Amino acid sequence: MRIALIGVGMIGGSLLGAWRQAGLVTRATGYDIDPRAVAAARALGLLDAGAASVAEAAADAQFVLVATPVGAMRRVFAQLAPALAPDAWLADVGSTKGDVIADARAELGAAFPCFVPAHPIAGKELPGVEHADAGLFAGKRVVLTPTAETSADALAAVEDLFARTGAQVERMDAVEHDRIFAAVSHLPHLLSFALVAAIGSQPAGQRKLGYGGAGFRDFTRIAASSPAMWRDICVANRSALAKELRAYRTLLDRLQRAVDEGDAATLQQTFELAARLRRQWANAADAQ
Amino acid sequence: MRIALIGVGMIGGSLLGAWRQAGLVTRATGYDIDPRAVAAARALGLLDAGAASVAEAAADAQFVLVATPVGAMRRVFAQLAPALAPDAWLADVGSTKGDVIADARAELGAAFPCFVPAHPIAGKELPGVEHADAGLFAGKRVVLTPTAETSADALAAVEDLFARTGAQVERMDAVEHDRIFAAVSHLPHLLSFALVAAIGSQPAGQRKLGYGGAGFRDFTRIAASSPAMWRDICVANRSALAKELRAYRTLLDRLQRAVDEGDAATLQQTFELAARLRRQWANAADAQ
Repeated sequence: MRIALIGVGMIGGSLLGAWRQAGLVTRATGYDIDPRAVAAARALGLLDAGAASVAEAAADAQFVLVATPVGAMRRVFAQLAPALAPDAWLADVGSTKGDVIADARAELGAAFPCFVPAHPIAGKELPGVEHADAGLFAGKRVVLTPTAETSADALAAVEDLFARTGAQVERMDAVEHDRIFAAVSHLPHLLSFALVAAIGSQPAGQRKLGYGGAGFRDFTRIAASSPAMWRDICVANRSALAKELRAYRTLLDRLQRAVDEGDAATLQQTFELAARLRRQWANAADAQ
Repeated sequence: MRIALIGVGMIGGSLLGAWRQAGLVTRATGYDIDPRAVAAARALGLLDAGAASVAEAAADAQFVLVATPVGAMRRVFAQLAPALAPDAWLADVGSTKGDVIADARAELGAAFPCFVPAHPIAGKELPGVEHADAGLFAGKRVVLTPTAETSADALAAVEDLFARTGAQVERMDAVEHDRIFAAVSHLPHLLSFALVAAIGSQPAGQRKLGYGGAGFRDFTRIAASSPAMWRDICVANRSALAKELRAYRTLLDRLQRAVDEGDAATLQQTFELAARLRRQWANAADAQ
């Protein structure tokens, strides 16, 4: 299969690597606003060629994977629309789906039914194609959020492509997707960034950070993620994220009062609920 | 050395294990409010004997390690005071120091100079002596916060004891200690508990939690920690923690407005500061 990769980063590179291992790639052409990313992907054997534009990359492709930050996707779809082969399929890998679907619907025109919105639930905090890992998706989930217009052929083809990476593929409504990931992904990223920024902004912040231990390391691992990517995600999913953040802040208001007043019972109640659910979560995750 | 362990859990058990490996233990006697913890530690070869009370455990000891939750320490010190041998040394392992010092000063009487406040910066989220690990402290830091009254001999002896676990031992003012760990440890624990509790309290919470990925796993690992222990820490260090939480909530108020208004610049600014500091932190931590 001739594949075009638009946005040459860690996720797109990992998918290409997995598809190469599965023997699916006859030719892969890439485009990125940063030519160094394309050069790196060629050096790694992930891409066969670079293209000078989105349109050039897509011209000959049977499948186009859009793996840019979600904030760039509307512009990419606009450039893809006139360039796509009539029988080409498309997918994205964005962490938000409602906004990406709206962008695709607005720009792709007749090609919109060939577009399958997708979200691979896998990642690491290290951006850049040099951190691509063909095994990243094995055993992980990929959520597809097709619309009423999505062609059954495109959906089946993209479902098969993601399954060939070793992932479990499922379908979900885009609105539900965005609500779920606002809670379990976008909010924790915002909170983790916020903790490091809050400490780092203090006069003694650097000294404090120096004493971060194992708990700090884990809690803030995702604060090393790409700022531009997460800015885009937070803006793209702002309605669901705003709601989750508001609920979280309401709980923090309550916990602030409990800390101020030394109200051990309220703290314990919240911590016990959390510890019970988190241990259940770990058991369920391990059982998968 | 004859050691008494008051509070038989993961940290106390790990220290005993390390001291046994270093050949320092001639006899270890333990007391815990839960007799099953003592039985488990005996079965693991960490304790030689159990005692029926704090006083009985301490009667013959040259060194007493208090490894209960910090909320129980005042009661423990009160029971230790009349039972300690005249030349015995004591240390604790509490995550907060100002309150523990106040409790010790109030209860230990003439033995207060023999008490060395200590905080080993190592841990894991799994409580219970069955998760003890003699290698837990290798390469980690132990912070001692002696007071003006602390005896130089006791301080030197406890410093040596912790150094023999493979840890780097340093001294710090207790007030500064509590400010630092409010920021880099106590606050992230509270925030991690709060996230799981906030999601879990929603009608669709269980379904949402089921989609937590690698970022969620890391961010919430510490939410599986002991609720009682962290309730005690949050109450014990409430003045420093309240201040850190307030500063954090002020930043979240700003980020809520940014999300509500789709203000990408504010989000990016915060995320970039955090990512830069977190990457520096990781480089510095790796270099150690």
